[in-house]
Amino acid sequence: MRIVVTRQKIHGHPAAEYAELLRERLPDHEVVLAETPAEEREQIRTADIVTGEGAAAEEHLDEASSLRLFAGVYAGVGHLDLDAFEDAGVAVTNASGVHAPNISEYVLGALVSLARDFRRATRQQDRREWRAYRTRELYDSTVAVVGLGAIGSAVAERLEPFGVETLGVRYTPEKGGPVDEVYGFDDLHEVLARTDHLVLACPLTDTTEGLIDREAFRTLPPHATLVNIARGPVVDTDDLVYALRWNQIRGAFLDVTDPEPLPEDHPLWGLDDARITPHNAGHTPRYFERVADILAGNVGRLEAAEAAGDAGGDDVTDLENRVV
Amino acid sequence: MRIVVTRQKIHGHPAAEYAELLRERLPDHEVVLAETPAEEREQIRTADIVTGEGAAAEEHLDEASSLRLFAGVYAGVGHLDLDAFEDAGVAVTNASGVHAPNISEYVLGALVSLARDFRRATRQQDRREWRAYRTRELYDSTVAVVGLGAIGSAVAERLEPFGVETLGVRYTPEKGGPVDEVYGFDDLHEVLARTDHLVLACPLTDTTEGLIDREAFRTLPPHATLVNIARGPVVDTDDLVYALRWNQIRGAFLDVTDPEPLPEDHPLWGLDDARITPHNAGHTPRYFERVADILAGNVGRLEAAEAAGDAGGDDVTDLENRVV
Repeated sequence: MRIVVTRQKIHGHPAAEYAELLRERLPDHEVVLAETPAEEREQIRTADIVTGEGAAAEEHLDEASSLRLFAGVYAGVGHLDLDAFEDAGVAVTNASGVHAPNISEYVLGALVSLARDFRRATRQQDRREWRAYRTRELYDSTVAVVGLGAIGSAVAERLEPFGVETLGVRYTPEKGGPVDEVYGFDDLHEVLARTDHLVLACPLTDTTEGLIDREAFRTLPPHATLVNIARGPVVDTDDLVYALRWNQIRGAFLDVTDPEPLPEDHPLWGLDDARITPHNAGHTPRYFERVADILAGNVGRLEAAEAAGDAGGDDVTDLENRVV
Repeated sequence: MRIVVTRQKIHGHPAAEYAELLRERLPDHEVVLAETPAEEREQIRTADIVTGEGAAAEEHLDEASSLRLFAGVYAGVGHLDLDAFEDAGVAVTNASGVHAPNISEYVLGALVSLARDFRRATRQQDRREWRAYRTRELYDSTVAVVGLGAIGSAVAERLEPFGVETLGVRYTPEKGGPVDEVYGFDDLHEVLARTDHLVLACPLTDTTEGLIDREAFRTLPPHATLVNIARGPVVDTDDLVYALRWNQIRGAFLDVTDPEPLPEDHPLWGLDDARITPHNAGHTPRYFERVADILAGNVGRLEAAEAAGDAGGDDVTDLENRVV
C-alpha cells in the first residue's frame, strides 16, 4: 500500500521521524513523505492511506480516488469534517490512547508537587534560602478521577501503591474501572465533598463543559487540589480564579486553560497557587512511535481483510481507534 | 507507666501534639510533657519511659533510676551516646520507617518533575509565556535504587505501575527486594551504566560516603538524573557540581547536601539543573502520629513482658525499632 505522510511537527519532532518509524514497521509498503503543499496534493491522489493532522487529507478528499484510510495523529478528530470522510468511503482513525503513560505520569508528578510544594523550594532556591517548611502527603487521602478512559485509568493504576482511596466518575459507572468506587455524573457533588485531590481526565462534552464551577468549588474541601489535563472549558475559569483568590481550594495544576493560550494579562498566571503548563502534558519523545504502532497494526488488519476478499473495505470495522 | 515527653518541635509541630497523641493511644498510662529544662530534669528522675530528641535523656541518665526505655523521635540515633544508655540498662528505639510514605512520594514527584521539567513551567509562568516544550517520560526507563530499607522499598513499590525497570543496590543482595534485579555494592558501576534515574536511599556509612563521585558520574549516561534523599555526603558535592556544569548528567533533585545547610555562595544553588529542597523530604503532618504508634506498640510489649514476669526488662528484645 502507498502510505502518505503529510506535513506535521508534533512536540518539536519532524514528520520525517514519523515516516522513518513507519518504514521500519512496514517494510513491505511504500511510505512517502510529502514535504510541501504541492507534494501533499500530488501524493494524496494515489495514496491508499494518508496520515497526519488531517487538513491536507480533507482538502484533497475529492481527488483521492484510492484512499481507504485517514490515520489522524491527534487523539481527537474534532477539527475534521468526519461526514466528508464517511461520504467518500474513507475510514478514519485517531491516536487515542497514546497519551496514557505520559499524561498519567504528569498527573502523579502534579499531585506530589502540590502536596510537597516543590514550587516553594524553587522560590527558596532562587534566593539561596535553606529553610525547612511543612509539607503534606498523599497517603491516606482521597483522589477523585473524573473520566476513566485510557488516561484516567492509567492515573488510577499508578495511584494504586500510594495508599490512597480512589473515586472514579464516568458516564457509565456500571463499566467500573481501576478505582475503589465508581460514580456517575449525577453523584458528582457527593464525590467532591469527599475529595482531597481532584483529577480531570474526561473529554469535553455538553455534560463536562463548565463541570467544575462555583458550585463545585463550594462543595470541595478548602484543602483540595485540582489537576486538569482534560480540556480547559471543563473548569469555569472565572470561578477557579475566584476559588484560588479566596482560598476555597488550596491549589491547581493546569495543563489546559480556557482560553488557551492564556493571555498575558490573565490573573491565573500570577496566582502562586495555580501552576500552569502549556498544554504539553501529552508530550512524549515516543509520540510518533506510538502513533506508528497503531497505524502499522491497522495496515495489517486491512491486509488481512483484503486477503479475506473484503477488498471494498466497507466491512472492515475492527480497525484500532476507528472513528469513521 | 510514666512517659515523659521532652522538649521538641518537629516539622513545626509542637511537642504538646505528640503528648496528646500518646495520651489517646495510652489512656491507662501517665503522659507528662516537660516544657522547660528544669521540668525535664525533674520528670526524667521518675520516668519509666522518656521520648524525644535524646539530649535531655542522655544528660540526666544518671538520675533516671526507673528509666527503662528511651524512645527517640528521629530515624537516626547517631547523635546519642548509645553506650551510656546500654551501660545504664536503658533500651533505645528509633523512629526508623516513619518516613517511608512521605519520602517515597517525594522521590516519585522528583522523578516526574525532572522528566517533565516542571521548573521550566514555573519559569515560563513567571514571564507569562505560553509555549510548549519537549518533555521526557519515565515509562520504559531504568530506575536504580541504592538502599532497599523501608524508604528504598517504598520507592520501588510505588514505581511498580509506571512500567519501568527497577534495579536495587544493597549490602546484602541475597535479601532481595521489591525490584526487578538486586545487586551488591561491588556491582555498582554495572548498575550505573544501565541507569536512567538514580535514587539514593541508603544510610551514610563508610561504604556509601562519597559513593557517587567522579567515577560514578563518568559511568552514568549523560541523560541520567539523580535523586538524593539519603544523606548529603553519599554524593561528592564537588564532583556533582562538575558533572552538572559539564552536562555529564542531566539533572539532580537533592533533599540533602554536603555541607548542610548549603552556604549562600555555593554553586549548587545557581545551577538550574539542580533542584534543592531543605532536607524536608521526611516532613509529614503525620510524623508524630507514626512515632506515637511505634511507642504505643512498644509500651504494650513492655507490659506483656512484665506480665510474663520479665520485670527487669533485660530480656525484652522484641521492641519495635530497638537499637540498644
